[in-house]
Amino acid sequence: MVSAGAPDNSQVLNRAARKRAAILEAAQHVFFAKGFVGASMDEVAATAAVSKQTVYKHFRNKGELFSEVVTSVVRARDAGIPAELLSSGKGSFEEQLRSFARFFLKGVMQPDVLRLRRLVIGEAGRFPELGEVFYDLGPKRAVEQLAVVLRQSSAHYGFDLPDPDIAAEYLLCLILSIPLDQSMLLGDEPALTDAELDRYADEGVRVFLRAYT
Amino acid sequence: MVSAGAPDNSQVLNRAARKRAAILEAAQHVFFAKGFVGASMDEVAATAAVSKQTVYKHFRNKGELFSEVVTSVVRARDAGIPAELLSSGKGSFEEQLRSFARFFLKGVMQPDVLRLRRLVIGEAGRFPELGEVFYDLGPKRAVEQLAVVLRQSSAHYGFDLPDPDIAAEYLLCLILSIPLDQSMLLGDEPALTDAELDRYADEGVRVFLRAYT
Repeated sequence: MVSAGAPDNSQVLNRAARKRAAILEAAQHVFFAKGFVGASMDEVAATAAVSKQTVYKHFRNKGELFSEVVTSVVRARDAGIPAELLSSGKGSFEEQLRSFARFFLKGVMQPDVLRLRRLVIGEAGRFPELGEVFYDLGPKRAVEQLAVVLRQSSAHYGFDLPDPDIAAEYLLCLILSIPLDQSMLLGDEPALTDAELDRYADEGVRVFLRAYT
Repeated sequence: MVSAGAPDNSQVLNRAARKRAAILEAAQHVFFAKGFVGASMDEVAATAAVSKQTVYKHFRNKGELFSEVVTSVVRARDAGIPAELLSSGKGSFEEQLRSFARFFLKGVMQPDVLRLRRLVIGEAGRFPELGEVFYDLGPKRAVEQLAVVLRQSSAHYGFDLPDPDIAAEYLLCLILSIPLDQSMLLGDEPALTDAELDRYADEGVRVFLRAYT
């Protein structure tokens, strides 16, 4: 019976990848329910229906597991900037920025990303390294991406922008801060609609352009 | 022995006020160390060296105790806007806004206020009512105060500001968001110096004035 023979390498890899994905999903669930301190590797293993050894084979400790959850949640909302947003020269500068702004704001305001941000902030006093992973993949990366766009676009549209990196920081906070801070402190209900988020994004861009052009 | 007689009313009140203050201080300590969920009225009582009944005589439950801690921490940083900041007409509009901005930013970035904000955010998913107390006394009140100043000052300095309430929201986020978001995610170390905070405040005001005047 060939099918009962030893699995080939690709089957082993697939199975390992599936187990890893199942552990990550379980871990996200447990972290959201219990927080970082309250979550245990035992509970993650039980939720993923694998042994504790299997969890430790994939993730050395709870901190590493948490970092990977952050990475998977933040990446899932944001598989890079859509190509059409990057093709500088389509539409006016304001239209281009507005597309970016709407894209970023919707990503940041996804329920899982909000919950993760709250979790990370709640622990940042004791475990700043958890926040660092989120910060690097989230705000820091967003500012870097926006700075690239501002640099390209200011050249393309011929206006002077002495420091695109700082401008990008202010642009990001004009787009995100009002709805994000509210949601951080007041919870998810009632969630803002897409139309409301678009209005925040557009208004942030408008204020930015008045200040910077 | 007169001194061993029954205490008069003012002594009873003083003692009650002192106990209340001791319980609040103990509660702040316990909430910071254990979080809202992890903190217990037993531990607060033990830390304050009073009986559990005494704690419940002053605060009906853990939620009410937490609200009072939020109120006392936020009020301690901000006993209202200093009178000299409110006397419209002193210095240029930019100078006046800058004084406000520096005042607000230093208040928000005080270590206890940052820790409390993290704590509230960490619990906002499960207990949004905790965040509401913080939101009302913090950002909401700041925006209201700034809107008053913008309204007075725009009249005094004779420039047109169609919607001071929305302008105040953007001014607040231009002043606070960059240093505050970093601190929320990355923890308190290294703390920003007063000079660094003043630079953020001044730059936020500069961007605001470019956009709104």
